[in-house]
Amino acid sequence: MASSSKSTLTIGTPIRATADFCLLPLGTSSASVSRQIADVQLLMQKSGLNYSMHSAGTTVEGTWDEVTGVIGQAHSMLHEQGIVRVHTDIRIGSRTDKTENFRDKVTAVENHLAKDAEAAQ
Amino acid sequence: MASSSKSTLTIGTPIRATADFCLLPLGTSSASVSRQIADVQLLMQKSGLNYSMHSAGTTVEGTWDEVTGVIGQAHSMLHEQGIVRVHTDIRIGSRTDKTENFRDKVTAVENHLAKDAEAAQ
Amino acid sequence: MASSSKSTLTIGTPIRATADFCLLPLGTSSASVSRQIADVQLLMQKSGLNYSMHSAGTTVEGTWDEVTGVIGQAHSMLHEQGIVRVHTDIRIGSRTDKTENFRDKVTAVENHLAKDAEAAQ
Amino acid sequence: MASSSKSTLTIGTPIRATADFCLLPLGTSSASVSRQIADVQLLMQKSGLNYSMHSAGTTVEGTWDEVTGVIGQAHSMLHEQGIVRVHTDIRIGSRTDKTENFRDKVTAVENHLAKDAEAAQ
Repeated sequence: MASSSKSTLTIGTPIRATADFCLLPLGTSSASVSRQIADVQLLMQKSGLNYSMHSAGTTVEGTWDEVTGVIGQAHSMLHEQGIVRVHTDIRIGSRTDKTENFRDKVTAVENHLAKDAEAAQ
Repeated sequence: MASSSKSTLTIGTPIRATADFCLLPLGTSSASVSRQIADVQLLMQKSGLNYSMHSAGTTVEGTWDEVTGVIGQAHSMLHEQGIVRVHTDIRIGSRTDKTENFRDKVTAVENHLAKDAEAAQ
Repeated sequence: MASSSKSTLTIGTPIRATADFCLLPLGTSSASVSRQIADVQLLMQKSGLNYSMHSAGTTVEGTWDEVTGVIGQAHSMLHEQGIVRVHTDIRIGSRTDKTENFRDKVTAVENHLAKDAEAAQ
Repeated sequence: MASSSKSTLTIGTPIRATADFCLLPLGTSSASVSRQIADVQLLMQKSGLNYSMHSAGTTVEGTWDEVTGVIGQAHSMLHEQGIVRVHTDIRIGSRTDKTENFRDKVTAVENHLAKDAEAAQ
């Protein structure tokens, strides 16, 4: 199985990926997480990646390694602040058929809705 | 254990919940899901619930039963269209300490960021 | 749009659904959540639904309303214990092409792996 | 802000992380995903990481970069097979207070349940 092992090592990770993540610090005495989320936003800003925060998470795009890496840095940053446990839910996608960015997805849905509205008149 | 069973039956579900969901039809021949997402948006509109679409999902708030119910209706609607398998990822939260809506969460983070920016000057 | 509104109301939720959920209490002073997860397991037991716990969540099957309802009851139960904020990530699926239960999915993958192993000899 | 930028670059990712992921190929003509999941299991095997499959996903542990890297390799592998779009939901956690592995979490819950059962007698 030497060849199989080799092929595992030689598979890369996607060069384009979009991740939407919702990070939660656990075991903090307060139920509010806005301070930690603000710190994560500052980290995103410094990362130079294209990102957008919404009420249920943050969407970020780049290479697979960049987007998963910056989320990992967010965990480390909070651990350094003394938060002993961090949990994140990530929705991550990659596709090879087009290079749309995450804002294009909303536009594609809105185009359908606009056509529907026109057809209904 | 009769009393325990009874207590299970008498626990309700939260009267306020916020869900963020990302729905995916499976086994469709196309990799594009924007048509189905547009249909889900129309369903959300008819539901009368407060909701907001973003590039990685849709956030909706109401009672627990309302928000999980409308997502279930979205599954049924797509099944009726002939889509045999639907998968949804839901982040759902409930809290008893405040009644903020989902837009307030973004404001709370932005307030921290504004104070940080001010402090940095 | 009266007919549309009516059709929204008359769409049901799926009669079979499988959910896998990972529940997290927030703002507890401890980073450990095993006590709360044990309580949720007791609730699942009393629910009478088919379920299975693993290290990253609990899988449960039933009607859409049953599975989302019992997770909502888990939130309410923890709120009654004084936990002010609960967050759950749910992966939920429904399909109309077959009635396999969640254990059948693992078997289907294992069958592929067994055939692969045989073919490799 | 040179120092801030530098500090971003110098934050690492956690040296221990546990991820539970549910990967879905999109735009395949079949609603069945067991063939692709079997391929992902073979990749996990070759990775040398500690992992476990269940009906709603696969749990894997290692460094942050290892666990997110192998999931990225799974995306690339499926893209090479001609699947143009892959979506994965990842629950990922890191903690600095203990080094339990993912099986220990189940044990911790089971210990609570055993004590409860004993106390109820």
